[in-house]
Amino acid sequence: MFRKEVLNFKIYETMKGDHRIWLDKNESPFDLPPELKDKMFHELKTIEFNRYPDISALPFREKLAEHLGLDVSNIVVGNGSDQLIDCILDLFVGDQVVIHTPTFGMYTFYAKKKGLELVDIPLDEGYDLPCLDSYGDHVKVIFICSPNTPTGNMIGRDSIVDVLEKGHPVVLDEAYIDYARESNMGLVEEYDNLIILRTFSKAYGLAAMRIGYAVARPSVIQQLSKIVSPFIINKISMKMAEMMLAQDELIRERVTFVKNQRDKLISEFSAYAYPSDTNFVMLDLDAYDYLLERGIVVRRLEGRLKGKIRVTVGTESENREVTAALKDYLDTKGC
Amino acid sequence: MFRKEVLNFKIYETMKGDHRIWLDKNESPFDLPPELKDKMFHELKTIEFNRYPDISALPFREKLAEHLGLDVSNIVVGNGSDQLIDCILDLFVGDQVVIHTPTFGMYTFYAKKKGLELVDIPLDEGYDLPCLDSYGDHVKVIFICSPNTPTGNMIGRDSIVDVLEKGHPVVLDEAYIDYARESNMGLVEEYDNLIILRTFSKAYGLAAMRIGYAVARPSVIQQLSKIVSPFIINKISMKMAEMMLAQDELIRERVTFVKNQRDKLISEFSAYAYPSDTNFVMLDLDAYDYLLERGIVVRRLEGRLKGKIRVTVGTESENREVTAALKDYLDTKGC
Repeated sequence: MFRKEVLNFKIYETMKGDHRIWLDKNESPFDLPPELKDKMFHELKTIEFNRYPDISALPFREKLAEHLGLDVSNIVVGNGSDQLIDCILDLFVGDQVVIHTPTFGMYTFYAKKKGLELVDIPLDEGYDLPCLDSYGDHVKVIFICSPNTPTGNMIGRDSIVDVLEKGHPVVLDEAYIDYARESNMGLVEEYDNLIILRTFSKAYGLAAMRIGYAVARPSVIQQLSKIVSPFIINKISMKMAEMMLAQDELIRERVTFVKNQRDKLISEFSAYAYPSDTNFVMLDLDAYDYLLERGIVVRRLEGRLKGKIRVTVGTESENREVTAALKDYLDTKGC
Repeated sequence: MFRKEVLNFKIYETMKGDHRIWLDKNESPFDLPPELKDKMFHELKTIEFNRYPDISALPFREKLAEHLGLDVSNIVVGNGSDQLIDCILDLFVGDQVVIHTPTFGMYTFYAKKKGLELVDIPLDEGYDLPCLDSYGDHVKVIFICSPNTPTGNMIGRDSIVDVLEKGHPVVLDEAYIDYARESNMGLVEEYDNLIILRTFSKAYGLAAMRIGYAVARPSVIQQLSKIVSPFIINKISMKMAEMMLAQDELIRERVTFVKNQRDKLISEFSAYAYPSDTNFVMLDLDAYDYLLERGIVVRRLEGRLKGKIRVTVGTESENREVTAALKDYLDTKGC
């Protein structure tokens, strides 16, 4: 009765339980300011809960387009960028999904769910894209995450352009772009085989609300929108995201704070930390269990990154705690 | 670059524009009472917007299970029941998706999107299931909508049991069940090839929030949950749905009102109306344009139902208006 891909499917899990400090999911450490919540809830009262959202999320897409200096025809929105990854896998011909590990796990999740062939071309030693002459003739889509998780680095613009020049559909996941030096959004104008993914779950602090979007040339968006579910995002998530677009200064302040704290963490552990253009730091410290015993949850990395951890930048006191705990860990190890 | 299924895909659209009365989407005519909205927003203030929802929506599933007298292991939730239809198509082996038209359009939407073979075994003259000796050997899943849209009738329990006995996976969509005489939820205990879909978009009045769920035997839910996206529903939608579960009396009152208004509409147009166990009525009246000119949007039916309309039961004044307009229409036609 069940497909073998499903029977063999590995459940995707995150840590649960009663821990003090959560630095495992690359969330923003800041909830919305109470006065902004009040303002939002005041606005939300006018929503008719018994009526479906706009079928293609047009009002939200218009505000997003204005914010990005693009047209609505460049944008499609999703219930988290996850759902757009799922849809994009139904968009293009070909049966191979190319990923570059170590990277975000959801490309694999959706490719496997659909029974597609996963082709892993690992990132090089510097966690940048390897240079390939050809990807072959069966490529459906190539996923590139930049800045990449869990490594934290940007993928070189030249490497991305090299891949785009091959002509295959490319998804560039910019979930962490607000913490980075520069976006590659501009490439959308030049390449009609490029789709950029963004999210409100990181710098915009709305992980609870599941809002993502894709940016591409209108010819791509036109096809993608056909197969994105109607009424895909609920009304409150869209309204909250719209209101966050007007909070430029707040977002900028918080992003600056996170970047400063991140750089501090990197300099404290310069012998173990990898460069980061994100809101987290990969550390060559096998301290997962040590931290967990002290109530601090980080991400334990696996495979090629075994023995390393990924630490989300938290609030000032959380960062102080994780720094102290990691120093204790090093002392214990006699480093 | 694009799959031919996508290039040939028909965009799913609903009516937009500046019309007075919307009776086209089978929504509840009632928004939440203001005092309930206030209470909800008060509760929602405690939500941490920067944190992801529970990965498998466990707290919500627990409340839902309690409400339904089931176990959490019987339930998976989705961003609208739509998204569960999508997932279910990835769950089972086989390449044929069986539908019984006229019925809900989303089974076709997702089957076509995935390039699956659609096998239509039309409902009989009474809009009940035709009796088949066999569905063949390639069936992935059989969709049954009961009460059915757009016809409004329940599918006979015996017909459903006959299909279940064939052993193929069956999805029974009970979106409109709260307006009907009796549910077939009890069949879940007997059949491990049955998945029942439910929604908060109709009787529970939360169409804006996109919340659906599936009920099945734990052995089915165990597999289905693996491939449902992590963090599938946002925190506010879940919280609102949880709070609505405590509003039994309100829901019951509103459902009774809708059923009474529906029966009134049916008796007013007894020569043209079909029986209904839902919050809408199918009428053998080609009055779509006539109503639209008067600011009333209903659903224009097509194919085998060409010349008929589907009218959602609205508020008392909306129903008065649509009744008056339809009487005028009949007068104009000289009926």
